[in-house]
Amino acid sequence: MINPALISLENQVFRCYLGWSAILVLKIFAAGIYTGLMRFFTATFANPEDLMSPKLKVKFDDPNVERVRRAHRNDLENILPFFAIGLLYVLTDPTAFLAINLFRAVGIARIVHTLVYAVVVVPQPSRALAFFVALGATVYMALQVIASAAF
Amino acid sequence: MINPALISLENQVFRCYLGWSAILVLKIFAAGIYTGLMRFFTATFANPEDLMSPKLKVKFDDPNVERVRRAHRNDLENILPFFAIGLLYVLTDPTAFLAINLFRAVGIARIVHTLVYAVVVVPQPSRALAFFVALGATVYMALQVIASAAF
Amino acid sequence: MINPALISLENQVFRCYLGWSAILVLKIFAAGIYTGLMRFFTATFANPEDLMSPKLKVKFDDPNVERVRRAHRNDLENILPFFAIGLLYVLTDPTAFLAINLFRAVGIARIVHTLVYAVVVVPQPSRALAFFVALGATVYMALQVIASAAF
Repeated sequence: MINPALISLENQVFRCYLGWSAILVLKIFAAGIYTGLMRFFTATFANPEDLMSPKLKVKFDDPNVERVRRAHRNDLENILPFFAIGLLYVLTDPTAFLAINLFRAVGIARIVHTLVYAVVVVPQPSRALAFFVALGATVYMALQVIASAAF
Repeated sequence: MINPALISLENQVFRCYLGWSAILVLKIFAAGIYTGLMRFFTATFANPEDLMSPKLKVKFDDPNVERVRRAHRNDLENILPFFAIGLLYVLTDPTAFLAINLFRAVGIARIVHTLVYAVVVVPQPSRALAFFVALGATVYMALQVIASAAF
Repeated sequence: MINPALISLENQVFRCYLGWSAILVLKIFAAGIYTGLMRFFTATFANPEDLMSPKLKVKFDDPNVERVRRAHRNDLENILPFFAIGLLYVLTDPTAFLAINLFRAVGIARIVHTLVYAVVVVPQPSRALAFFVALGATVYMALQVIASAAF
């Protein structure tokens, strides 16, 4: 049986999951706000009711807005599954050292991913590296959860 | 240590989170079904195998379909992080009055967001207001979770 | 009060949720990797810094890449809400037989959905069926959670 103390602020693994999850929620929202600001700066609005002036028309192809939207979508594809699997991974009672470093790896790699994708464009393979570090850590957690469920 | 009674139907904060989360899951799915219906009404299908008649061609730019898809995507960007952070926020044992009203604010604001975005288009700032009420409440929860994890 | 034993590897319902959630996390990531591979095979890159050769230009309309992206987005719309509601549904202490088969239905239907949408295109209604089986099972769970929260 899972020790109820796993879901506890005294469990440093859970605490680390808690902190990084909340930071990554704010990071996802920051991408949303950044999209909105970029829409203002480039006057790229997708809805007629958003047009700030009667001279503007709806526009869908501004490369700066689309870049932020791709970074934001990539967050949804990778961070949201982490929220689910990270919690379940805590419940498998992993080694604290490994688990804490995996959470840090996901958190830092996803922040770096947004920075090099949408804030200051850095040549590849920087974005690919950030992507695969976070992906690798999350896949490892998923495999551990499958092992716990199976045996 | 987190009181195990927090994750309990007798904890009205958890119960409120439970109810609003389930309603918002149905709301997200409603946006998906609504996209499908809009595709039928406007005969806008994105895949060759979906075309109902040999006279139709795939189409990607119907403004009504795209509007619902933007509303739906906005749900993913904002409601899915709430599912994660709302549960973690319950575990920080917040004041019941505040927590319950934050959950209500998120739930009602996100339903209003869909209504004024995709069902009956209402001039701004109605959609912006609904967006920021839900965002503000969720950011507050994330900050509380970070404070719990840090201290 | 919720029995703490519900969140336990000895609860076969929770264990089944755990296993299928982890498999579906891997399935979502597989769609992401598949998008990346498809971008390479078709030389369809969305960012200037991703172009492998100076002769290439950014491209957004390759039908194969867009198909995988639609399948991936559909996963986000349907599987991510399942992660949240599935866990809450476990906490309502459902009948094991029903719950386990609902989780299996969601897991298998979503894998079939990706296969018939993005790997081997199978004529409709195969994709629609896979979509509605998973949706129906998840909606049922959401309604059970609402009933638990309300009474």
